[in-house]
Amino acid sequence: MYKLLSAACITLALSGCTANDAQQLNTSTAKNAAATNQVKNIIMVVADGMGPAYTTAYRYYNDKPNTVAIEETVFDRHLVGMASTYPARESGYITDSAAAATALATGVKTYNGAISVDTNKQPIETVLQWAKQQGKKTGVVVTSQINHATPASYLSHNESRNNYNAIADSYIDNGIKADLYLGGGWQYFLRNDRNLVAEFKSNGFHYLDSYQGLTTLPQKPVLGLFADVGLPWAMDDTNPLRLSAMTKAAVKQLDNEQGYFMLVEASLVDWAGHANDIAAVMSEMHDLAATITFLEDYVTKHPDTLVVLTADHSTGGLTIAANGKYEWNPSLLHQLKHSPEILAEQLAKTDITLAEARQVLNFDITKAEAQLLQQARYQALEQRAQYYQLSKAAQSKVKEPKLEQALYTAIKSLIDKRTNTGWTTGGHTGIDVPVFAFGHASEQFSGQVDNTDIAKTMFKLLGKH
Amino acid sequence: MYKLLSAACITLALSGCTANDAQQLNTSTAKNAAATNQVKNIIMVVADGMGPAYTTAYRYYNDKPNTVAIEETVFDRHLVGMASTYPARESGYITDSAAAATALATGVKTYNGAISVDTNKQPIETVLQWAKQQGKKTGVVVTSQINHATPASYLSHNESRNNYNAIADSYIDNGIKADLYLGGGWQYFLRNDRNLVAEFKSNGFHYLDSYQGLTTLPQKPVLGLFADVGLPWAMDDTNPLRLSAMTKAAVKQLDNEQGYFMLVEASLVDWAGHANDIAAVMSEMHDLAATITFLEDYVTKHPDTLVVLTADHSTGGLTIAANGKYEWNPSLLHQLKHSPEILAEQLAKTDITLAEARQVLNFDITKAEAQLLQQARYQALEQRAQYYQLSKAAQSKVKEPKLEQALYTAIKSLIDKRTNTGWTTGGHTGIDVPVFAFGHASEQFSGQVDNTDIAKTMFKLLGKH
Repeated sequence: MYKLLSAACITLALSGCTANDAQQLNTSTAKNAAATNQVKNIIMVVADGMGPAYTTAYRYYNDKPNTVAIEETVFDRHLVGMASTYPARESGYITDSAAAATALATGVKTYNGAISVDTNKQPIETVLQWAKQQGKKTGVVVTSQINHATPASYLSHNESRNNYNAIADSYIDNGIKADLYLGGGWQYFLRNDRNLVAEFKSNGFHYLDSYQGLTTLPQKPVLGLFADVGLPWAMDDTNPLRLSAMTKAAVKQLDNEQGYFMLVEASLVDWAGHANDIAAVMSEMHDLAATITFLEDYVTKHPDTLVVLTADHSTGGLTIAANGKYEWNPSLLHQLKHSPEILAEQLAKTDITLAEARQVLNFDITKAEAQLLQQARYQALEQRAQYYQLSKAAQSKVKEPKLEQALYTAIKSLIDKRTNTGWTTGGHTGIDVPVFAFGHASEQFSGQVDNTDIAKTMFKLLGKH
Repeated sequence: MYKLLSAACITLALSGCTANDAQQLNTSTAKNAAATNQVKNIIMVVADGMGPAYTTAYRYYNDKPNTVAIEETVFDRHLVGMASTYPARESGYITDSAAAATALATGVKTYNGAISVDTNKQPIETVLQWAKQQGKKTGVVVTSQINHATPASYLSHNESRNNYNAIADSYIDNGIKADLYLGGGWQYFLRNDRNLVAEFKSNGFHYLDSYQGLTTLPQKPVLGLFADVGLPWAMDDTNPLRLSAMTKAAVKQLDNEQGYFMLVEASLVDWAGHANDIAAVMSEMHDLAATITFLEDYVTKHPDTLVVLTADHSTGGLTIAANGKYEWNPSLLHQLKHSPEILAEQLAKTDITLAEARQVLNFDITKAEAQLLQQARYQALEQRAQYYQLSKAAQSKVKEPKLEQALYTAIKSLIDKRTNTGWTTGGHTGIDVPVFAFGHASEQFSGQVDNTDIAKTMFKLLGKH
């Protein structure tokens, strides 16, 4: 970049003005730049649930143990600060994904569960909606259903994140807000009572339901739904780097004279965190890293683009090491052929022998551990037998015991024990989250910020003052 | 600061050079500044064990629930980035305090347990030692014993942090490296086999053993030891803000024409983390916050001073919320009259009634909970009775059961349940730690750094290239 500095910049570089001066100058010049030199494209990447333990853990998961140095990750290259995530006072200090996504999308704190409505349940304008008004194209690329809390908070307004059908309907009924939607959601968009896919088509949208179609998109608005609800875990999906594949297709599709605003969400980082499933977490982080690496290259070619990556909150109380031991051993995670959830389904089918367990899990386990897996299966079988003896009415009141669920829990505990991974909750925690930014005006997201500041700065960069 | 900008800076501020230019300029000017304009004073603050959950939790502990906004903390004003903490490859990904302090003091990764020796057990020069060679005064202010891992790594060299007496001896035998030592350590400096306090005195040091003496220090080198090992928990100490009191006295003492290098360590944040004691953690964080607030004011008056605050690692796997509940309730922590450790000693004395438990704990507990405390006390009594029946030889092989230890554990679990605090280990975790910096050349610590980069940049600022 140095060669690009203007004469005045060189003058200063050679002048005796102190680092403090330069720091002040940086801030003042940046503000100046923001006012006079608006951003063309904004790519907001939300890694749902990705607290600081996730990006740190990924560095060690990604490390090649046979090299001397620990390899730098793409996250290491772009950290600029951290963000607080607390919701509106009435919801305490721990946010859910809806209140946090609302803060990131609108700059306003609200109650847990709210989709871009304030504490009086009144709609709040989102950066995506504002960008569209300014003549920019807009898009959302997620690994959850496209009407899940985070994308919904950029696209719509609802008093509850749980109104999935109403939120899906609003994507048509309140005016189509985006030129591109990629993610999951057949269950909500292909319903018996309403076929929203057909309605998108009649509004001129190209529809696709498999990743193959992503490389040959026509020059028209796009709706791509690839799963009933959320996508499969990255490590189980036909394309384990599907978030990066969708993102590549999306920037190509959205690129235009006026620029665009795109939301990219690594939604399943959070789902894996809720499941306390370190294997699934790392596979989702790997797809996210590939996505950010692609965007890093994209921004060098399109310096008028801003990329911001942050999390809405941290999930699971993940800790790198636990139980008094000073070690974390992610290498085993690279051996798994499928997610622990799929491995559990495979083991649920028949009686579990030591040989079969080792073959399915693809890591060494003891005879005692194989017996524990077998026990877990038997217990679930008994519970299921009892369940079937209940009346239909009684059955409707309880959950059907699943063999695979019991085995999923058992397999995760084997993996946690070997990797020495810690968890404290199936929910969220309040720790501040890392903020990464690169490209146009990225320095404006530096230091300690609040999640609302990210939307406020984006509005400013999009000319709203 | 803007009014301090030189004419050339103003020129640029008004010129059209972009934010990216300014960012480059900032870096290049800073490097330029570092080379030509060396720092006068460096105050390195290590908050042992203070991972990102600690500074976030302190924000909510510090929050006044009756105000609309959540109050900003002094940490929020100075975050510049995060640091990785992993030790040398042979020790895996999770560091101990010795390897981490060695990295912060020397810029070199080493094995867990090493005190400023490399993986071949060869001594490595520390920033404190280099600063002294450059004619600066030096000092260490800690809440642990002054020969504990972190201060020892700045002052001395030893193949093991556990050689406490040898490390204490080296403070004299290898040449006195500092002009001021404040902390604990009578056990190591007033021994039957050697009186190091007398030796410091005969080397011209003023010795004090109570905080009172801090406000009236003579103009000579100072050794202040205020406890047998570490200081009492902040919340139990005669001065709950003793780290800030010691720091105020130290900067006054060290201030001189040539400048100084001072290590300040909030050592007991880590000890409270190891104990999984959220009440003690927050009281140590409060003393640290008061210390940084004092230094913030000091740096505005002494802009030629650099202050860097970071942690060596995170401890305990602390999480803000746990067990699936989306809440964290620190308000109870403000009610406690003493640390849980002291409360346990009080409850250990006699049989525990509901009324007495409520009076001692100063928060409401149920009859069942009081009975659990009583049970814990009885069990410890029985275990102790069994212990006393053992032969002396057998006794020497096991630990004497302590009533207060059993009650300490029980009280902490009552507090964790009410605050909804999570822990995963009695040891350390590998999460990256926050980095805070202000004053001269503070922007050189921004973004993602490794713990070794902090020492490397300090060496550079102290003229070593």
